[in-house]
Amino acid sequence: MRAFSISALACFVLCTAAQTFQRLGGCPDLGCIFPPDQVDFLAGQYFDIRLEVHSPVNGSEARVGEPDENFTFTIAKKGKKPVPATLYFNLDEPKLERWNFTWYEDLFAQDASKPSLVNVTSKIYRRVALYEPGEYEATLSYYGEQRTVANWLVRDLPPKRRAKNVVMFIGDGMTTNMITAARLIAHRSVNGKYMTKMALDKFPVLGHQMTHSMDSFITDSANSATALYSGHKTTVNALNVYVDSSSDPFDDPRFETISEVFRRRYPNSGVGIVSTAFLADATPAGLAAHTSNRGEYDHVIGAYYEGLKDHEWTDWDGPDVLLGGGAEDFLESEKTRDYYKLFAEKGYNIAWNNTALDSAPDNEKLLGVFQKSNLATWLDRNVYQANLLNQSNYPDGSGRDAEDLPGLRDMTLKAIDVLDKRHKKDGWFLMSEAASIDKQMHTLDYDRALGELLELDDTIRATIEKLERLGQLEDTLIVVTADHGHGFDVTGSVDTKYMDAQDNDRSKRNAVGYYGKSGLSQYTVAGPNSLQYSEGVHFPARWDPRYTLHSGVTAFPDRRENYQVHSEGPRTPAEAADNEKNGYFASYKDAVTGFVVNGTLPLDKGEGSTR
Amino acid sequence: MRAFSISALACFVLCTAAQTFQRLGGCPDLGCIFPPDQVDFLAGQYFDIRLEVHSPVNGSEARVGEPDENFTFTIAKKGKKPVPATLYFNLDEPKLERWNFTWYEDLFAQDASKPSLVNVTSKIYRRVALYEPGEYEATLSYYGEQRTVANWLVRDLPPKRRAKNVVMFIGDGMTTNMITAARLIAHRSVNGKYMTKMALDKFPVLGHQMTHSMDSFITDSANSATALYSGHKTTVNALNVYVDSSSDPFDDPRFETISEVFRRRYPNSGVGIVSTAFLADATPAGLAAHTSNRGEYDHVIGAYYEGLKDHEWTDWDGPDVLLGGGAEDFLESEKTRDYYKLFAEKGYNIAWNNTALDSAPDNEKLLGVFQKSNLATWLDRNVYQANLLNQSNYPDGSGRDAEDLPGLRDMTLKAIDVLDKRHKKDGWFLMSEAASIDKQMHTLDYDRALGELLELDDTIRATIEKLERLGQLEDTLIVVTADHGHGFDVTGSVDTKYMDAQDNDRSKRNAVGYYGKSGLSQYTVAGPNSLQYSEGVHFPARWDPRYTLHSGVTAFPDRRENYQVHSEGPRTPAEAADNEKNGYFASYKDAVTGFVVNGTLPLDKGEGSTR
Repeated sequence: MRAFSISALACFVLCTAAQTFQRLGGCPDLGCIFPPDQVDFLAGQYFDIRLEVHSPVNGSEARVGEPDENFTFTIAKKGKKPVPATLYFNLDEPKLERWNFTWYEDLFAQDASKPSLVNVTSKIYRRVALYEPGEYEATLSYYGEQRTVANWLVRDLPPKRRAKNVVMFIGDGMTTNMITAARLIAHRSVNGKYMTKMALDKFPVLGHQMTHSMDSFITDSANSATALYSGHKTTVNALNVYVDSSSDPFDDPRFETISEVFRRRYPNSGVGIVSTAFLADATPAGLAAHTSNRGEYDHVIGAYYEGLKDHEWTDWDGPDVLLGGGAEDFLESEKTRDYYKLFAEKGYNIAWNNTALDSAPDNEKLLGVFQKSNLATWLDRNVYQANLLNQSNYPDGSGRDAEDLPGLRDMTLKAIDVLDKRHKKDGWFLMSEAASIDKQMHTLDYDRALGELLELDDTIRATIEKLERLGQLEDTLIVVTADHGHGFDVTGSVDTKYMDAQDNDRSKRNAVGYYGKSGLSQYTVAGPNSLQYSEGVHFPARWDPRYTLHSGVTAFPDRRENYQVHSEGPRTPAEAADNEKNGYFASYKDAVTGFVVNGTLPLDKGEGSTR
Repeated sequence: MRAFSISALACFVLCTAAQTFQRLGGCPDLGCIFPPDQVDFLAGQYFDIRLEVHSPVNGSEARVGEPDENFTFTIAKKGKKPVPATLYFNLDEPKLERWNFTWYEDLFAQDASKPSLVNVTSKIYRRVALYEPGEYEATLSYYGEQRTVANWLVRDLPPKRRAKNVVMFIGDGMTTNMITAARLIAHRSVNGKYMTKMALDKFPVLGHQMTHSMDSFITDSANSATALYSGHKTTVNALNVYVDSSSDPFDDPRFETISEVFRRRYPNSGVGIVSTAFLADATPAGLAAHTSNRGEYDHVIGAYYEGLKDHEWTDWDGPDVLLGGGAEDFLESEKTRDYYKLFAEKGYNIAWNNTALDSAPDNEKLLGVFQKSNLATWLDRNVYQANLLNQSNYPDGSGRDAEDLPGLRDMTLKAIDVLDKRHKKDGWFLMSEAASIDKQMHTLDYDRALGELLELDDTIRATIEKLERLGQLEDTLIVVTADHGHGFDVTGSVDTKYMDAQDNDRSKRNAVGYYGKSGLSQYTVAGPNSLQYSEGVHFPARWDPRYTLHSGVTAFPDRRENYQVHSEGPRTPAEAADNEKNGYFASYKDAVTGFVVNGTLPLDKGEGSTR
């Protein structure tokens, strides 16, 4: 924003502080425009505009007086005269809103419970769009001479539709290093050359993306889903809105997502959403929800069911196929309607297990919810199946165990069958998420995370085959991407037999082999109890070799490491102290034969951090 | 190798063990062929063939009897009859060699000092080549019915020379995560979008490579330099040879490198070697040396000076330009000839400082050695220059300080001037290495490592400009690659002021901000003592902001972290105990205000590990 660079020399202390503990992300000035500076739109993409003027009462920015009630706002196409926004968009002047909020300027202020108070005046322009490609300048004028300028770029739509269908695979939290590790344990190499390749290795084009948030250099799955689906970067925890300073999680300025744009432009097109997470989770939610708080699960399921009802928006009426976990958000409760009933009334078949998924008719809409919480991992579904028992997680809420579970591949292939049957002519968009790469990396459960990644790769391979069989491969764009990552890497091998035989934390570390002592992957060598899956090519032949991977993440809570598969179920690396103010400590039972590594993360964090 | 897959069912225990602690890498059988199975050659590329037959005396593979003296070896082009190698290559039968060696089968055997002894018979065929593209099968027959088969692929040379010149930039130990971190501290972003790009970001093609060793899934710079320059993957510590089991580091089977192939095919072409490491180090050495031990520094400098003299090989007679550090290996001593004198006699100008480098004539050969050991880092040369004093490291051995030092950019641009002047017609190959990305990551000195990476990027930018000015850009292929990596990542920010104010290891960790609390990079915000370098675009405006990066590596010795720049000089994270058997412990003075993180690596390792 221009005001920022004009005043940069005068506000070292303030600006420096504001970069980490921020009054409001995307608004370094006292006047805020959302969408902010440097934003791109598609021509015709709907969005809201939120304006705020701040009057800090105390703290380093304190000023005397109320926030400006008479701020003005203009839009100018580059080279043309600024026009008041109401005129430009042919809207009535929105009513002035008022609120206040508090924030902490740094950790010292937070420890001392000394928040800074800010009074706010605000207006919002609902559902506008810029139809003409080019550069725009949006200007907020306030407090007399003060200006905040946002430069916007409107990109033209391509004249020709390039692909009829799109499959977007999201490996949540997946990094190149994890792909390398997955390849290492599942594909056999001879003298440094792989004898087989991952499906991921065969893609013709490779690129990188920068996943920074608008106001932080780390993102989360909500913010990154927003960026992937809408082209707009926002704030951690936000779904398809810029975060304003009001306390209401539903009044923030929205922008249109790919599913909404696609349905608006091609009314007979299909949309499918598949995830191994609970379906109210951020990555699937990003295709329907608009809220600054990803934790508003009922809003998410409601948005799948009926779109947005609080303000005028698009005519989005839900996906054709919606498959995943998270039954608790569909079951009737004090907070939640009986969504199973509502979806059924709207014409959806409901599937609660893999058998029902498989036999559901392809020509009708389909809701599949297969258990409470996130779906069980590939490793537990395929190798350590005893971990599926005694979970009381059947999706109907009956308290039975969910044992007949589909994996990502089953769900994705079924979704394609439904979309292809219903929308062969007009095309479809499918998002398929391997969610537990991220979830298992958070708990430092590298084996389970890599199992999920290999299942994603297997799903990609099977999807390509399926599209070829359906005659749709040439008309389908397939994109595989991560949304953010974890600082994970493999740095050698561990002789687990040797580690188990040592009796103290320091000597256990001598079990680690690095450089030339890393040896070769033993996960590809069949063992006496080894799982033969798909001729041993796509998954490890065994998960418990004597020589395992020396792997880890760069940021972690206190933990114990024994570098062995957690065959009794997903990992819990750290446990909260009895007095929770004392934070998390390494869990002893998580890795009894391992050694302690004290953490690098804040004490209130029991999981690994992301990047 | 075929013998491996035929016997796989019968030798679970043996094969499993052999994958980590190996009798001899690339040789799971008792008969060994080097080059081994799955190797590629360029048509006409010279190589040696080493054959070995093993007779283990004790240990899990023990057998009765001496190693076979009458083994036979044949070569067959695919679809044709096998021909004895002597006939195929028109060579005399090499003489039979004999030796023995010992190895440990695992850590328990090593702790108990119980090695396994192996007797060996062997032959070597020197300097052969396969000229006809296609698939070959090399077969060693021994102990009657036993066979080891190596499948080789000979690739055709392209009919047309695609590029006249090549610049190969190697960021030693550089990963995508480090590039992300470097971009973050040196380039300003607004609302999640970068206002400037790295030179690296502007390349038209992006790819990944797999850096596994032949016999280990981790590589080192010697092995990876070998792979980059020759197309052959070998063993950690080896330079342009496959490692046989003899104790002699100079008798191993060699293969021709890009510098040798290039000079053989284009006798008037030029070769340049530039590195910020000591010049006998692995990455520059890979363009001249052939040895199984990268520590044979005199062999390396000798190979720059006069090529290989012990066996018939190519007519390689040294690079046109050789610039870097490591003066100790050029100074006359009991072990080393006076290489400065020898290079001068051969027509090289000798430069010992940046002024002499700059003024050296472009039409003559040039040796530039600017200090002892590795060149000082960009951070010490440009920001914390006091660290250059009292080093007694002037390259003439006089004991003065080397203060007038070139950086990677100065050396690379000068090398291009010399190569362009001397070989404009026939073309040239230049390797330019940013060595201390790796060296500073080993010591967990993230700031210095990122400074080196940014200097590499600045060098790439300046190289493109220089080539454009010389009219050579269209005729020059520019490749930027890493050779291996460190498991490094950035996971948030640290309020160093808050951390410094806390008085115990656990509460210091609350200074870490993750996700939305990471904020924005403060390295791009000018401070009172900030360095303005190249308009603040290519390097950080400051290295000591209050809010720094929360970064780290996945595998490390015991260390302390305060996440602050080490302004007093490069970092030493761990120190050996008084009784060195007890291994390394975190250095207190390395980060006085930080907290301890106990390591994940063997106790004898005082540095971070690589991947």
